[in-house]
Amino acid sequence: MRIREAVLTPVAFADPPLLNVMGVHQPYALRGILQLVCDDGIVGLGESYGDLAFLDRVREAVPELLGHDVFDLQGIRATLERALAGRVVTDQHGLTGGFSARKTAATVFSLFETACLDAQGRALGVPVCELLGGRARDRVDFSAYLFYKYAAHAPDTGAPADPWGEVLTPEALVEEARRMIGEYGFRSIKLKGGVLAPERESEAVLALAEAFPGHPLRIDPNAAWTVATSLRVAEQLDGVLEYLEDPTPGIAGMAEVAARAPMPLATNMCVVGHADLEPALRARAIGVLLSDHHYWGGIRATQALSTVCESFGVGLSMHSNSHLGISLAAMVHTAAATPHLSYACDTHWPWKTTDVIAPGQLTFTDGALTVPDRPGLGVDLDPDALARAHETYERSGLTHRDDATYMRRFVPDFSPNTARW
Amino acid sequence: MRIREAVLTPVAFADPPLLNVMGVHQPYALRGILQLVCDDGIVGLGESYGDLAFLDRVREAVPELLGHDVFDLQGIRATLERALAGRVVTDQHGLTGGFSARKTAATVFSLFETACLDAQGRALGVPVCELLGGRARDRVDFSAYLFYKYAAHAPDTGAPADPWGEVLTPEALVEEARRMIGEYGFRSIKLKGGVLAPERESEAVLALAEAFPGHPLRIDPNAAWTVATSLRVAEQLDGVLEYLEDPTPGIAGMAEVAARAPMPLATNMCVVGHADLEPALRARAIGVLLSDHHYWGGIRATQALSTVCESFGVGLSMHSNSHLGISLAAMVHTAAATPHLSYACDTHWPWKTTDVIAPGQLTFTDGALTVPDRPGLGVDLDPDALARAHETYERSGLTHRDDATYMRRFVPDFSPNTARW
Repeated sequence: MRIREAVLTPVAFADPPLLNVMGVHQPYALRGILQLVCDDGIVGLGESYGDLAFLDRVREAVPELLGHDVFDLQGIRATLERALAGRVVTDQHGLTGGFSARKTAATVFSLFETACLDAQGRALGVPVCELLGGRARDRVDFSAYLFYKYAAHAPDTGAPADPWGEVLTPEALVEEARRMIGEYGFRSIKLKGGVLAPERESEAVLALAEAFPGHPLRIDPNAAWTVATSLRVAEQLDGVLEYLEDPTPGIAGMAEVAARAPMPLATNMCVVGHADLEPALRARAIGVLLSDHHYWGGIRATQALSTVCESFGVGLSMHSNSHLGISLAAMVHTAAATPHLSYACDTHWPWKTTDVIAPGQLTFTDGALTVPDRPGLGVDLDPDALARAHETYERSGLTHRDDATYMRRFVPDFSPNTARW
Repeated sequence: MRIREAVLTPVAFADPPLLNVMGVHQPYALRGILQLVCDDGIVGLGESYGDLAFLDRVREAVPELLGHDVFDLQGIRATLERALAGRVVTDQHGLTGGFSARKTAATVFSLFETACLDAQGRALGVPVCELLGGRARDRVDFSAYLFYKYAAHAPDTGAPADPWGEVLTPEALVEEARRMIGEYGFRSIKLKGGVLAPERESEAVLALAEAFPGHPLRIDPNAAWTVATSLRVAEQLDGVLEYLEDPTPGIAGMAEVAARAPMPLATNMCVVGHADLEPALRARAIGVLLSDHHYWGGIRATQALSTVCESFGVGLSMHSNSHLGISLAAMVHTAAATPHLSYACDTHWPWKTTDVIAPGQLTFTDGALTVPDRPGLGVDLDPDALARAHETYERSGLTHRDDATYMRRFVPDFSPNTARW
């Protein structure tokens, strides 16, 4: 079954002013939606980043892949590696590690692999997770992903209002969690930190622990802390956190914290590709790896990653950027077919109000999604919604994510800086 | 597509008196052939060990698996792990590491996984390698697997004669290689050592190097040597071997040799399950891992293993026990779908004269097999050949492999002993 056409549609969707170490989310988040049209009319769907540099790499790759068999994923990988040799997509938001030609090829391949697996499943009449060896679980748990946030976007952006209000205090954060958990039923709760002083974020975690007893808790300051601060917070939150995510930058710093912290450290910043595994595992720097099929070289590569983690006694969870329903479906199939992935996965899902898939195809109950039972990924494009999301992209004028520049609209002298505390 | 019936047929085939550290091959090698009959009449094929203890574990598992969906491999694995909890198959030939309940479950699962993947491929109309992500290569290279051997089996066994004659000298070994390479076209050459004194085996390797310039060479004494002997041989064969396989027992000993040997060390003895990976990799004990889907938990697990090896800069090759065509087909699909498996695989294929698959379905040219393009594994049972092989099994009277006891027919005081030199 050969690729006849590959339609890449950049889309944008409204995103609230969520805070992190790099700044604040812009009014719109960008994604790229891939439709892989096969010679028998079957269309496979993929979703990934929407930054222009990434979209350009995908567009460069398309002519190389026309006529390729969607089952020949090794051939597609090799073709992409050749076509993109030396080409680097710089990850401008800076939250998923460094840049390299290898990571770029892995990221572009992942988009095509997702669409090919969807096409394979549709052609064969089986869900993607069955092409991956079957489901280790029927439902995949996700976590409540809490953010500090501003009340509204900069007024002259014309960005839509969001219903979440300002969240800069423990009380407001507990209220945000209560609302999100009420609506979705999440058990695990993750706080995106690195925004306020570490002591204030620790207090917020303790407030969450008190308000939601029995809910596993995590905090992710995106490497905003020094080793000493990380250890101080780790001690304060002993017995409270299921894991501490990226407290400090780099494998050496993480190893220093890991040696003395009472809870496992998780990362999606210091281990973001296969070359990082050996140094991190030798240094015993991490206890939990946050996988992400978008940049770990695809769905099968993420499954295989679990073997590395299991062999070294390291847990596996799942990282999220702002995303839509095709990515969520891919995450669900990947998690279902990866037994060792036993933590609730992260998702930004509750923060958005629109999508490009048919309404109601992915619905959370008790904080989890049931693995779709339909052929392929089990989700369908809503063509009108796709057209609207593309219009939003055109109107947004955005071509890449840049939380730092936008943050200077609120804090003129802001400068992103890891290990700043 | 559900499992309606599972037919396990023990078979035997004539095997020459091949020598190794544990003794000498008995007149017949045993295998178990699985036919997984699905509710729509599709039959998936599997092949694995034929020792009674293994067959018994498979038979125990069958009732638990009837009615199971062949796509639900995670469910089948979990069911087998429950059914076989605490049950251990002792690997009596002692050449693939220790015994454990986990390894037993992994081995039984592998047999069913192979048959399920064959059934999936037949049902969907795609070759197994396409279910695994496609082929990284169209042809899979194998090595010439040389053995020292006696001229004939013990006379009272009534075992058939073989055409290879006695091989106990460098000259005879070169002649054996010439014949095998002439017939199959192999490039890489492996000598099963641990039979003669290390100096004599080194001389034999040097004779092979001289007779076959440019052919990659390996020797595998099955841990027959001390660390000091291993280092002495490694020095003698510097620049001659592509890798030195299991010179000495255990991860600690291998690490000691690896630190000073000029060539990479390979193993299928000190790293035989996922629990061995962390200690071996931390100790830098190995440079090449010899995978084997039969005991590494199946075809997908072997693929995933390559990610561990690649991340740690360790090569991947493939181990072989005496086997028939279904196992060979499974090896070929696994190797095809595992890009990092870049050494020629081992196979005992040239040493046998019969099979259970239809004649001519797997034919070597230039030392390689073309990956089958037909649905599933791409091989079919020959029912008459299967019946004959089962009759041979019944007549053989053998229930397990025991090279050491049989060796005492030739050398009455023989005792297998690793690190004996």
